Amino acid sequence: MNQANYSKLRIVLHQTHHTIGDFAEIFATLKKIVLTELESAKGPTVHVFPELFLTGYPLQDLVLQPNFYLALLTHRQEFWEWAQKQQAPHPALFLLSGPDYQFENGSPNLGLIEKISNSLFALEFKGPGPNSSPTWSNVYSKRLLPNYDIFDEQKYFTPGQHTGVYKFGDKKIGLLICEDMWPSKFYQCNPVLELAKLPATESPDFVVNLSASPFHIGKQEQRIARAGEISQLLGVPFYYCNRVGGEDEILFDGQSFAFFPDAHGGRVEKIAPLFTPDRLEFSLVEKISPTLNIASEQQSPNTWESLFNPRLESTKSAQGPKFKTKTLSLEDARQCFQSLQFGLQEYARKTGHQKFLVAVSGGIDSGLVAAIVRQGLRPGQTLETIFMPSQFTSTQSYDLASALCKNLQVRMYSFPIKFLHSAVRNAFKDCFNKELQGLADENIQSRLRGTLLYTKANEGNFLVINTSNKSELAVGYSTLYGDSVGALSLLGDIYKEEVFQLSHYFNQIYGEKIPVDMIKRPPTAELRANQVDTDSLPPYERLDAILESFLSYRIPLNHLLEQGFSREEVERSYRLYLNSEYKRSQFCPIIKVKPKSFGFGHRNPICKKMPNLT
Amino acid sequence: MNQANYSKLRIVLHQTHHTIGDFAEIFATLKKIVLTELESAKGPTVHVFPELFLTGYPLQDLVLQPNFYLALLTHRQEFWEWAQKQQAPHPALFLLSGPDYQFENGSPNLGLIEKISNSLFALEFKGPGPNSSPTWSNVYSKRLLPNYDIFDEQKYFTPGQHTGVYKFGDKKIGLLICEDMWPSKFYQCNPVLELAKLPATESPDFVVNLSASPFHIGKQEQRIARAGEISQLLGVPFYYCNRVGGEDEILFDGQSFAFFPDAHGGRVEKIAPLFTPDRLEFSLVEKISPTLNIASEQQSPNTWESLFNPRLESTKSAQGPKFKTKTLSLEDARQCFQSLQFGLQEYARKTGHQKFLVAVSGGIDSGLVAAIVRQGLRPGQTLETIFMPSQFTSTQSYDLASALCKNLQVRMYSFPIKFLHSAVRNAFKDCFNKELQGLADENIQSRLRGTLLYTKANEGNFLVINTSNKSELAVGYSTLYGDSVGALSLLGDIYKEEVFQLSHYFNQIYGEKIPVDMIKRPPTAELRANQVDTDSLPPYERLDAILESFLSYRIPLNHLLEQGFSREEVERSYRLYLNSEYKRSQFCPIIKVKPKSFGFGHRNPICKKMPNLT
Repeated sequence: MNQANYSKLRIVLHQTHHTIGDFAEIFATLKKIVLTELESAKGPTVHVFPELFLTGYPLQDLVLQPNFYLALLTHRQEFWEWAQKQQAPHPALFLLSGPDYQFENGSPNLGLIEKISNSLFALEFKGPGPNSSPTWSNVYSKRLLPNYDIFDEQKYFTPGQHTGVYKFGDKKIGLLICEDMWPSKFYQCNPVLELAKLPATESPDFVVNLSASPFHIGKQEQRIARAGEISQLLGVPFYYCNRVGGEDEILFDGQSFAFFPDAHGGRVEKIAPLFTPDRLEFSLVEKISPTLNIASEQQSPNTWESLFNPRLESTKSAQGPKFKTKTLSLEDARQCFQSLQFGLQEYARKTGHQKFLVAVSGGIDSGLVAAIVRQGLRPGQTLETIFMPSQFTSTQSYDLASALCKNLQVRMYSFPIKFLHSAVRNAFKDCFNKELQGLADENIQSRLRGTLLYTKANEGNFLVINTSNKSELAVGYSTLYGDSVGALSLLGDIYKEEVFQLSHYFNQIYGEKIPVDMIKRPPTAELRANQVDTDSLPPYERLDAILESFLSYRIPLNHLLEQGFSREEVERSYRLYLNSEYKRSQFCPIIKVKPKSFGFGHRNPICKKMPNLT
Repeated sequence: MNQANYSKLRIVLHQTHHTIGDFAEIFATLKKIVLTELESAKGPTVHVFPELFLTGYPLQDLVLQPNFYLALLTHRQEFWEWAQKQQAPHPALFLLSGPDYQFENGSPNLGLIEKISNSLFALEFKGPGPNSSPTWSNVYSKRLLPNYDIFDEQKYFTPGQHTGVYKFGDKKIGLLICEDMWPSKFYQCNPVLELAKLPATESPDFVVNLSASPFHIGKQEQRIARAGEISQLLGVPFYYCNRVGGEDEILFDGQSFAFFPDAHGGRVEKIAPLFTPDRLEFSLVEKISPTLNIASEQQSPNTWESLFNPRLESTKSAQGPKFKTKTLSLEDARQCFQSLQFGLQEYARKTGHQKFLVAVSGGIDSGLVAAIVRQGLRPGQTLETIFMPSQFTSTQSYDLASALCKNLQVRMYSFPIKFLHSAVRNAFKDCFNKELQGLADENIQSRLRGTLLYTKANEGNFLVINTSNKSELAVGYSTLYGDSVGALSLLGDIYKEEVFQLSHYFNQIYGEKIPVDMIKRPPTAELRANQVDTDSLPPYERLDAILESFLSYRIPLNHLLEQGFSREEVERSYRLYLNSEYKRSQFCPIIKVKPKSFGFGHRNPICKKMPNLT
């Protein structure tokens, strides 16, 4: 039976989309897929699911909570009992990833975990015949546990110790879970290399990778480049199955694909869409003679570290600094809009919101946020905006905010705060016998806006979308509990220069909805008369390049001095960054679209002392 | 020379206190200590410093930033050049812990790290003679890198591979860095066991542990118990040197000590004070025959997991649930006050604040916070309070808040918000044509208070101290941007029942400063008429026990049902906890006084779905 000829084998990738911990839904989907696929199969088939399909990813501390794993174990057992009753007209293998627990004294009810593996379970239906009952076993555990940036897998999982090859009929399947495909000097082993070094009799006929790979702009090209290397090194097709989901700040984009090797470097065979569940079916192609060798694998430039290269490029101007942040392409912009809208929808769905609220100021950040949210609305959803002018708000701000909302066809409430601002000033004077001025007075305006915004949100069950950008967050250019409020940040991973670029692209793609004057006007917080951002910050083109340099953790600051940035602007930007960690620490989740972002993967102490540049 | 007889060896523990990254201060201190100790020495001496003394701990991402490590390397090189010029009348060994970097291509200036170890450098002065110049070398790297709860060491460091023994004259020193002393089934090796298994010729004459061990109530007893095990297993004295510091939420308490073995279980020899730098000097005592053996070490109950046992105890009442949270002792309360005051002072010092601001409500949480802050004030510091009554605030609240502030001799401003609340209500009605009611209206009061509090803080450069307790945080019983504001939380790791206990202890220790009626009155948020907390929450004694159970990650919820808690109260508490992660994610740092706390070590997704209890 095991040596049956499976040369007509089909491989199906199930690009799924579930809420983490939603076991009822996950196992219901699984049953449905198993039933449908068993019924419709024409021959032996391998079904591949994403990493930790049985639970969702990332789980963080949920994986340690008894209520979580007791529910998982109950559902898994119930599924396995169900599976044993199913009939399979053809052999079928379901590769399902989930955590595998070992408990002290073998009992999950005592709350003492011995070990958790990030594992791959094989559910195999043998097809008709005397031994037709299915088998279920843990056949592989993830070897490489990413533990950098947003990843904490070594906190929860124990790494697997064995090369992954599973025999299905006469076919040998190379098994990888996500990170296993990314080599690095930081890891003790390279699972791909281990597959390549297997003797011919053990060598896989194809490789599958079960992934939960976070999105960032440009990542798919990097995945394909690495998939191509693996495929050409082993001379076999490589099937990559990634999950879909938005988990607070982290997005999973799907884009599952297969890579088929050939003598000319190979080719991608189908790519599933971004942020959409899908089913991709493939045939199995013949093994070829590898065109890459072990030496080249050992030198592979496609390490995980390579995913974190700073996004910088040379400037064209002869004067001034020699580099700036990489300009977004039209395709980058499309992905950016799609990812921000998907992240927003995921957060709204999981927290039960259908109504969004944005405070518009007449500036470009809130303008772009409103435009993106509006463009991504689904049936039954609404966006409303509030414009909250103070005595320092210009008529131009009102005109631009109105024009924007008219173009977007969203309701804009105008809620002047001049009177309330005065009331607070007066009450403060009565209480403390002091006239307010400067920062304290400026911040009142921002905090009153925060309060009013949340009053409206509480009253109508709106989700408040924050409008701060990455440049502002990096230097703390915001008022805590004021313009920093919100449930979710759309632009917190987008530098100000990119806000301008995205605004132009938005108009290019969707028609001129964002007033051009809104993009052109000099950025200002309008918290005092004639204020502009460049009063206290370097011009954004220079600031953004400085920020990307030090936020990448790759470029020593003194390198910037050699590249045409002034010591004063570099030191000031860095100081502002160091001293504003307390604001970022109370900020909402930021939808992540870049390799290095603020949020969960950016872990810096609030209190510290850092030396001056030397 | 190396076989010189050092039987009169002295061992000095330097319990130091520095801001992380403050290299100028750290290396200046180090030079001063080296100079003083070399001059005053009467014979050979070993000097032990805390873990990562050269940089501070925890560093988080700082350790990856080029500006950080370039400064470290510069200071370290400068120190080493200085050290080579010093004269040592007697042999002296300085055991200094710091990160050791390896860079790609050997150059730190390219921003590419190959490897970082959490290492121990030995600076050895040979004393007078022909080979009198000192030596400097990395003699050990930490083996066990904690990666659970607040710890992320595997994110940054590569573990050492070798047992740590350093020969100084005729003495062999067993080397451990912090976690190396805590065995666990989760680790591949046990460095203590390795020391115990060394052949007699290699076996250490004494053991040192360089620590950066976070404080929690009761931890010192656990350290001493484990130190005793190690000492009795090896038959040698054990010298434990811990740092002092408050790093955002994490406190390091010092309490360095030595444990001397004997035939009767051994004894602690001196303990340095909590939260205070100190210098402890010891002689070297003779090796004895071990009273513990390898088998007992393999069964040691003093694992790191044991530090996280839930703080629960049996109730005495025959009726109702069978357990509750562990009652604090007077000594616990003393440590609690001391640790909260130290954490506050550290945050204030590092962020440059001398003035504190607390919003007092007449309730016990803000009352206790004000009392603790007041009692911990240092010369030149002030505490001010603001009482902000609304229409729902009772006269009793005013009377109690006034009485408290009078007792504490702190200024209390009264800032009624009734008028501003009406002004917002009316403005809202004008704008949205809707009368506000329910939660939206309640939250306005809380957010106006937040705004006013921060206006005062901005105007006078005050540090705002948050007053939420752990029970409220756990169930989201607070208004985001309202009573949840603040730079630092003093009670965020203290359950409500413990707030009551601490209040009684406060009065017992410092005289009756907190009005007894403030402790006795039923807890209320006073955001609507006749509101009390038990309208929407279980009684705190029951709630706290439920919370401690599931926050420990050790007790399945269905276990609570067997222990006399109702399904309704357990499910409701758990649901409230699951659904309030978004509030905690925007909360300020909480001073950590327990093993399991909210904050950096509590990592749970905001969006998830969790099954009902089965």
